[in-house]
Amino acid sequence: MNKKPLILVTNDDGITAPGIRALIEAASQFGEVVVVAPDSPQSGQGHAITLTSPIMFHKVNLFDGIEAYECSGTPVDCTKIAKHVILKDRRIDLCVSGINHGSNASINIIYSGTMSAAMETSIEGIPSIGFSLLDYSFEADFEPAKHYATLIIKKVLEKPLNDCKLLNVNIPKLPLSEIKGIKLCHQGNGNWKEEFQEGEDPRGQKYYWLSGSFIQKNEPEGSDLWALENSYVSVVPSGFDLTIYSAISNNKHLEI
Amino acid sequence: MNKKPLILVTNDDGITAPGIRALIEAASQFGEVVVVAPDSPQSGQGHAITLTSPIMFHKVNLFDGIEAYECSGTPVDCTKIAKHVILKDRRIDLCVSGINHGSNASINIIYSGTMSAAMETSIEGIPSIGFSLLDYSFEADFEPAKHYATLIIKKVLEKPLNDCKLLNVNIPKLPLSEIKGIKLCHQGNGNWKEEFQEGEDPRGQKYYWLSGSFIQKNEPEGSDLWALENSYVSVVPSGFDLTIYSAISNNKHLEI
Repeated sequence: MNKKPLILVTNDDGITAPGIRALIEAASQFGEVVVVAPDSPQSGQGHAITLTSPIMFHKVNLFDGIEAYECSGTPVDCTKIAKHVILKDRRIDLCVSGINHGSNASINIIYSGTMSAAMETSIEGIPSIGFSLLDYSFEADFEPAKHYATLIIKKVLEKPLNDCKLLNVNIPKLPLSEIKGIKLCHQGNGNWKEEFQEGEDPRGQKYYWLSGSFIQKNEPEGSDLWALENSYVSVVPSGFDLTIYSAISNNKHLEI
Repeated sequence: MNKKPLILVTNDDGITAPGIRALIEAASQFGEVVVVAPDSPQSGQGHAITLTSPIMFHKVNLFDGIEAYECSGTPVDCTKIAKHVILKDRRIDLCVSGINHGSNASINIIYSGTMSAAMETSIEGIPSIGFSLLDYSFEADFEPAKHYATLIIKKVLEKPLNDCKLLNVNIPKLPLSEIKGIKLCHQGNGNWKEEFQEGEDPRGQKYYWLSGSFIQKNEPEGSDLWALENSYVSVVPSGFDLTIYSAISNNKHLEI
């Protein structure tokens, strides 16, 4: 019997992004890695799934000695097809997603394909971790992030998570020597100030291109934004029950 | 000064779907309605946003006396462009999304474009409601759902919501006389049993098309699935903080 854990690796920046390579290197120290990732960048896809058209996948030879597939769907499609077609009948011990190029702290978790892919496997009961580095550049240095991904993967494989199946891990854009450690956090309270760049297409039609800047409020100690600002890796145990329980009893006037 | 509330109407089934027409009829009894909805069906788009291409919108004349726009983006893009371009500098008093063709109860909230559009405006502090009818048919009878949408919109405009900005409302597929009332609920614990239909495209390439069936567990009283099964309209006060707070203190072994 094979005792090596089976680790599914995915992302939302696409299978050719440098971040997934760093994550494969981290994960393959601990088990058998299978990669199923989008064949093109899928940032901002949130929890989108493909319902109105079929998806396809192909085996690719991109990572030495690692079984890998590129898939035409969204990040969530990738983990669905991994679990129910490619790895059908096999137990997945861990799913890791990323390392994302850019932050998924605070409200960004909602828009993030990286986190949604990991959330999808967590819905299936599989321990799942999304990793993100606070650096959007394709030339980002992933070594510090890889160091912390290695540590966290090791810990999660050694001892099951309590009360949750999903971790949102963000790593500050700092040299390894300047990162102070790992903090368990709650989701911070930042949000986006939206702007649209207005322009005209070649046929004179107006278009709008989403832009905007992230607004960080004065964060209390304990939030992911606070941790990142103070040079810590933030880890937020996350779920998929969106109920605000206090609001059930406090809005009974809506009942009839 | 105009005292009529400004109500933004959107959906994910596209601006030509029968469900949005029923919702416009309900909402326009209470204020000025502006419609900004996708120009094509966008079911299952979750919280996807369009980052890598521009989006466009056009004024359309589909609803008597109602200002309406169709937009090339996702449901979340629609509410972003409504708030920041089309209704820029105007205060939106309420956003309603739907009426969706099919359930968004339980875990479906995560995949739902209908709910994500409403969640996006709730993130901006706008009271927001997503409505869904448990009937996928294009010929569904929306009259009972419209009756309850009218009641709930009236109540939310009359008295602010407590502790939350977003309601997930699901309406059972029943004649009006058989619906027993409205229940405040928590998100139920169902999930999808995934299946992929396998086939070959015209060039002999294998494809996979997402299918599957919804598995409803034995639900306790108080969940949205329980309420719907017992002929009630379910209302779940919902948020966007995904943190599992108990798991912060219970996983301190991950810290270093």
